[in-house]
Amino acid sequence: MKKNTKSEYKLSPLKIIPLGGLEQIGMNITAFESEDSIIIVDCGLAFPEDDMFGIDLVIPDTTYLEDNIDKVKGFVITHGHEDHIGALPYVLQKINVPVFATRLTMGIIENKLAERGMLETTQRKVVKFGSSVNLGCFRVEFIKTNHSIVDAAALAIYTPAGIVVHTGDFKVDYTPVFGDAIDLQRFAELGRKGVLALLCDSTNAERPGFTPSEKTVGKTIDQLFQEHKDTRIIIATFASNVDRVQQIINSAYKYGRKVVVEGRSMVNIIATASELGCLNVPENTLISVDQLRNYPGNQTVIITTGSQGESMAALSRMAENIHRKISIGEGDTVIFSSSPIPGNEKAVTNVINKLLLKGADVIFQDVHVSGHPCQEDIKLIYTLVQPKYAIPVHGEYRHLKAQAKLVAELGIPRENIFILQSGNVLEMTPEKAEITGDVPVGNILVDGLGVGDVGNIVLRDRQHLAEDGIVIVAFAMAAGSDLVLSSPEITSRGFVYIKEADEMMKNAVGVVEDVLDSCRERGTTDRNRIKSVVRDNLSDFFWKKTQRRPMILPMIIEIDE
Amino acid sequence: MKKNTKSEYKLSPLKIIPLGGLEQIGMNITAFESEDSIIIVDCGLAFPEDDMFGIDLVIPDTTYLEDNIDKVKGFVITHGHEDHIGALPYVLQKINVPVFATRLTMGIIENKLAERGMLETTQRKVVKFGSSVNLGCFRVEFIKTNHSIVDAAALAIYTPAGIVVHTGDFKVDYTPVFGDAIDLQRFAELGRKGVLALLCDSTNAERPGFTPSEKTVGKTIDQLFQEHKDTRIIIATFASNVDRVQQIINSAYKYGRKVVVEGRSMVNIIATASELGCLNVPENTLISVDQLRNYPGNQTVIITTGSQGESMAALSRMAENIHRKISIGEGDTVIFSSSPIPGNEKAVTNVINKLLLKGADVIFQDVHVSGHPCQEDIKLIYTLVQPKYAIPVHGEYRHLKAQAKLVAELGIPRENIFILQSGNVLEMTPEKAEITGDVPVGNILVDGLGVGDVGNIVLRDRQHLAEDGIVIVAFAMAAGSDLVLSSPEITSRGFVYIKEADEMMKNAVGVVEDVLDSCRERGTTDRNRIKSVVRDNLSDFFWKKTQRRPMILPMIIEIDE
Repeated sequence: MKKNTKSEYKLSPLKIIPLGGLEQIGMNITAFESEDSIIIVDCGLAFPEDDMFGIDLVIPDTTYLEDNIDKVKGFVITHGHEDHIGALPYVLQKINVPVFATRLTMGIIENKLAERGMLETTQRKVVKFGSSVNLGCFRVEFIKTNHSIVDAAALAIYTPAGIVVHTGDFKVDYTPVFGDAIDLQRFAELGRKGVLALLCDSTNAERPGFTPSEKTVGKTIDQLFQEHKDTRIIIATFASNVDRVQQIINSAYKYGRKVVVEGRSMVNIIATASELGCLNVPENTLISVDQLRNYPGNQTVIITTGSQGESMAALSRMAENIHRKISIGEGDTVIFSSSPIPGNEKAVTNVINKLLLKGADVIFQDVHVSGHPCQEDIKLIYTLVQPKYAIPVHGEYRHLKAQAKLVAELGIPRENIFILQSGNVLEMTPEKAEITGDVPVGNILVDGLGVGDVGNIVLRDRQHLAEDGIVIVAFAMAAGSDLVLSSPEITSRGFVYIKEADEMMKNAVGVVEDVLDSCRERGTTDRNRIKSVVRDNLSDFFWKKTQRRPMILPMIIEIDE
Repeated sequence: MKKNTKSEYKLSPLKIIPLGGLEQIGMNITAFESEDSIIIVDCGLAFPEDDMFGIDLVIPDTTYLEDNIDKVKGFVITHGHEDHIGALPYVLQKINVPVFATRLTMGIIENKLAERGMLETTQRKVVKFGSSVNLGCFRVEFIKTNHSIVDAAALAIYTPAGIVVHTGDFKVDYTPVFGDAIDLQRFAELGRKGVLALLCDSTNAERPGFTPSEKTVGKTIDQLFQEHKDTRIIIATFASNVDRVQQIINSAYKYGRKVVVEGRSMVNIIATASELGCLNVPENTLISVDQLRNYPGNQTVIITTGSQGESMAALSRMAENIHRKISIGEGDTVIFSSSPIPGNEKAVTNVINKLLLKGADVIFQDVHVSGHPCQEDIKLIYTLVQPKYAIPVHGEYRHLKAQAKLVAELGIPRENIFILQSGNVLEMTPEKAEITGDVPVGNILVDGLGVGDVGNIVLRDRQHLAEDGIVIVAFAMAAGSDLVLSSPEITSRGFVYIKEADEMMKNAVGVVEDVLDSCRERGTTDRNRIKSVVRDNLSDFFWKKTQRRPMILPMIIEIDE
């Protein structure tokens, strides 16, 4: 693996700058910069961590791109998952450059843009596998791969310093459900030409062996249909897994069942995929949920969202008895065609328990395969591409580290393997690569209409409020004087059950009155000082009574006299 | 399995009343009632669910026992895990009856009671395996089992209606580390005599095969010591798994390493287990953490808490760089001798990432075995005991259901298998069993010193506060009149970053002023009415501006004039 890249390239150095996606799952976005050009690979969102109370989603800080807006030539998108496209509607408002993607990926992006009225203002170009686009000093070629969504692409980025291959998220599937297998020949050709660097998916780098073909799930599903001829079948899976939906529809058709699609995201994706010819639904197979009642249960299948136990998804609403049109009971077989994403295990298990309690038969094991490469798949790609530099991407640190270990075993020298952190500037020429600096990066929190208006202070307050609640103490004072004009009014939320804490609250009023008396004796008029003394004394009082630390918020109402 | 229990028993019916532990992991407590006697098997706590903000732990509602206090003869405890003993210090305050347990179990209970000064007031009796205690009309025999804690017992409860066997939590370990294998012969003898009902551990009822012996982990640990002769070794495991600790100490001794024990609960249990002779530590093996510096890293082992990623446990503090005495880096091998309990996956993975980032080698797979029976083990016990009635216990509904399915395959008629819910009264005689009623059950939340003072209202408020924060609006009014004496003071916490929301907050003051003006025009003096109008208008205003719904809390300060 010591072969150098050939000298047909000019020697302007290349900077690779991940702006997110390392140290975390989600929020994939990486800038490639050389000469006067920057291109951005992917623009994903992350879902909030458990302690980010009230946050809807997280998008990357793109200050570096905004500061270099004149250089930015376009977004190049590998596939249509939220962690690769979800931040586009936000980031495009600041960085309005063209977006390049394959057919289904663009279809999904367009749905998002249309929802926000941004279709008119966004330049878009659908790219075919095998074709390239020129963006400043870069040329980007889209290479067919396989993944848990149709039309996923790897990228060969031709830069002044050499060819860089970015796998995107991928798996090696020799027998894909739709379209061709991953274009391994192209990876090999590029490897023969000489590849400067490979950025490769690390998600499953801890798992030995190969990832099985999506078709193996199809066989399992077919067998489950065969075994459950007498019951209605409800299958939950990821909305974006069009191939999975195709295989369910195939089995439904084979066994003469009508198909209902439930859940907004599932309906949207299926519509888009059908329009673009990525999904083939036999005529008279789809029926509306209202038509369900016209067929016996064992002649229907419901394909639904909610495989991750998401509280508002269709399957969860069925389990909770709050779905308006579908209720589950004996005579139903519910299949989870999915694995819980780390962090969702308890939510999924809750839904399973509720479905079982209703008398449904629930199948939740071995009806899923991963969309990411296992260790042997990763070795295959490295062996075809033979890059000089290896840059594990897409995963938490443990996954990046696991890929680095594999790659070292393949003979790439340790000093040529870079585990980057978001913000690192990795500068490379055919001769050398090193981290030369950092650019600003971070999480921007989206809450309702607010983008970035909830920061650390607000989050800390939410955590404090969640833990111990709040006590508010308000009283009136004569403006500019030390004269207190009312008794203190104390109320609390999320602290104790007020009706049963009557006496403690009365005593708390006494504490505040004492504090105010002593402030007056000392002639204290400074409002901040008074608030601070009230806060400290009340906090001590409540700690002694309850060993809790509610947030204490004193408010002084100034009365002009 | 149709053999009836013999007629040597009087025919007073038996009631089995689970007061917790079904529909959930944790909070195991079951009452057995016949004639004038009640005994209670186990008295555990549950850890709070993710949405129980600020709650420390959850204990069972024991109203039924309090209402029948004259009948209650004692607590019979199967083993020393928190989900079987943790509520004792709370429940004993209301139901002060004797506690019966085996040696180590009692040792752990006594530690808890001592911390609260309850040793004097609690009657306790250590019971040997094979012995019985008489409690009213019941006799309870303690039977040796194996589990992930030493001295775990199954119970044979001799009742007027027949013999009931309760397995407690158990596994079948033919080669246990400490003490004897599970007393399968006794289970068989009881089966020959005739067993009315079996309550059996369901935790792993979804897993095929047998649970491997604890000794297999010892072999793995030994091999890891062999492979990592040049590094310091840090092993995290469950504090209460005395056998695991024993095996780590054995390997440490064999390879000439000194052992440091870190984490309060680990130190406590090891002390108790050593005192009681359940743990054998060779002389000159344990050293204090301060002595670590006197030995090269590769001559030491640190056994620590934190295998579940608990934020305040010793290993997490090491990973976060906030442990006062131990810092981790290159040259350290960290071994997780544990599996993440469902719900803890993300916390564990966080700790793993941080340890890897520090340069440590981290091993987190296959250094653990379960303490619960898999499917073949469950079938073994049923086949030995041959109960008339089967009552799957210890697990979520999915696990109970899985055991019920296994048991049906063994030939027990479906109508003799009871999946109970907490509170159900299952009444049985040798001829028949049925659910005849329900008693009150529930979760009592413990928060700091408060037991039960945080209920649904407080929790809902905490959830609301966590999601969107709070806005408080306070103003002064002349007592008994519609006269407003101050401008409205508005402040917020956990809603928006106040400094950047200046204009919105000013406009909000305007909204309130308009509302107060119109109240006055209408001559409204009713304070609740005024608050309600203020709340509604502010809520609408903020929703339009932010699409968030903060809690709105109006406060009126009454001024006597």
